[in-house]
Amino acid sequence: MKPDWIAVDWGTSNLRVWAMGPEGVLAEASSEAGMGSLQRDEFEPALLKLIGGWLGEGGVPVLACGMVGARQGWAEAPYRAVPCAPVAKGELIPVLTHDPRLKVRIVPGLKQASPADVMRGEEVQIAGALSLLRDFDGILCLPGTHSKWAHISAGEVVSFQTFMTGEMFALLAGQSVLRHGIGAGWDDTAFDSGLSDALSRPEKIAARLFSLRAEGLLNAMSPDSTRARLSGLLIGIELAAAKPYWLGQRVVLIGAPKLSAHYARALGAQGLKTETLDVTACTLSGLATARGLLQKV
Amino acid sequence: MKPDWIAVDWGTSNLRVWAMGPEGVLAEASSEAGMGSLQRDEFEPALLKLIGGWLGEGGVPVLACGMVGARQGWAEAPYRAVPCAPVAKGELIPVLTHDPRLKVRIVPGLKQASPADVMRGEEVQIAGALSLLRDFDGILCLPGTHSKWAHISAGEVVSFQTFMTGEMFALLAGQSVLRHGIGAGWDDTAFDSGLSDALSRPEKIAARLFSLRAEGLLNAMSPDSTRARLSGLLIGIELAAAKPYWLGQRVVLIGAPKLSAHYARALGAQGLKTETLDVTACTLSGLATARGLLQKV
Repeated sequence: MKPDWIAVDWGTSNLRVWAMGPEGVLAEASSEAGMGSLQRDEFEPALLKLIGGWLGEGGVPVLACGMVGARQGWAEAPYRAVPCAPVAKGELIPVLTHDPRLKVRIVPGLKQASPADVMRGEEVQIAGALSLLRDFDGILCLPGTHSKWAHISAGEVVSFQTFMTGEMFALLAGQSVLRHGIGAGWDDTAFDSGLSDALSRPEKIAARLFSLRAEGLLNAMSPDSTRARLSGLLIGIELAAAKPYWLGQRVVLIGAPKLSAHYARALGAQGLKTETLDVTACTLSGLATARGLLQKV
Repeated sequence: MKPDWIAVDWGTSNLRVWAMGPEGVLAEASSEAGMGSLQRDEFEPALLKLIGGWLGEGGVPVLACGMVGARQGWAEAPYRAVPCAPVAKGELIPVLTHDPRLKVRIVPGLKQASPADVMRGEEVQIAGALSLLRDFDGILCLPGTHSKWAHISAGEVVSFQTFMTGEMFALLAGQSVLRHGIGAGWDDTAFDSGLSDALSRPEKIAARLFSLRAEGLLNAMSPDSTRARLSGLLIGIELAAAKPYWLGQRVVLIGAPKLSAHYARALGAQGLKTETLDVTACTLSGLATARGLLQKV
């Protein structure tokens, strides 16, 4: 098995790699060697540990995206300013390697001047979605630790906005006083009520969070309901702030299946029918787009 | 030195004690033996470690407030339902001790059915404020980890509401992606702009938090400004939700001096002149009120 090229999704906490052949994925591997845990000279060894067995005599192109291109990453890939295409040929950043078989390029992230915003990694998922959807105009929503909403027109990212929803959920559920009453399960009704309360009166969010604790103490609200209501409240204030993005628009969701389903349910409650794309398919398709740009004369 | 009685403020993380004489504080001590770190049989030894040297032959009244009265505390002091006086004679909960010299009573917290809410410890500060202010009608605001707003009328707590502002600030500044760009200093202008943005469009809070990170990366917003703007944003959404409490009301602040000053500045920007009370003075005065109730026939 010798891959045509290697796809790399290198985030803060994880490293995922795929050996790519003419028909798609030949093999895949992953490790916890995320950007956040590596010094500059540790990136190449961490990569070789996963892909060494895939390498033959000649050189192989490696296309990487994510926090690997941050200032603290392997090599800084400066942000490109929107509006622009999500990936562009002349701006794939080459990385010098000790192993001559590696031809590594990093896809740079995107930036927006006002409101100030940045992304690293999602631009590749966006490129992948545009390749999968063909002639897409509308809104891409990428739920996650830092959820992104992107307005797409004529193949370009026109504008985008990031929400700390996933990180806030993790901090509040895992490390705040609310952790004492948070379960691992789910409750659709509690999610819906949290969502509806937050959307109709988003300015009350700071009061409603502590009420989750008090409801558990006084009214025996179940840990699963508390978790679902917290999620509904946080997605609700995200939707309240993102309204200019989704109202009356075509919205496609790109994210982990369970989380995307919550967003689909939440937007459905606002009368919006959404489509969903698989996030890994978008990442691979986006990196393939970058690889294709490199091959063009 | 033999105190008339001993005042105890026993929270989740800390234990503070004061030896009280006819003219006030004779001595004080503190430790990190908070409720959160103690098993039930460890409370009495933790207390004796601090106050043992103050005890003589006879018994001494010990008045305690805070999380010491929680279900996981020394002895559960069931919440009293508002509307009610902040402390009441018949509901000071006696605790059995091995040392016969200790006559311990715990002041119970308050609860509110709808919106569900609870407090433990702040009811004593409120009682203290009412004792210091005499015939107070209006709003007490107690900024902190879990800020409380309480509506006071005719010596009773009519209603109250808790905001997780302090805890959110600590989590976001210390443990989220924002921590990379947060300083230890301050910037009044950044605080004011965060406050004003949050108050005028509270529904945008979820987007504005990540913008702090992007402003640091793209526009070199200073770590001190970022910290002050984060504080302004979070206090801003608290004030937006608490508006029914403060609009057109007399508001007295009870909290740590720096934090109270931020709240005073924030409310001042809304045209509201506030008064401030020292939080320790309120705690001691409130426990003295409880002690006085016990002495009445």
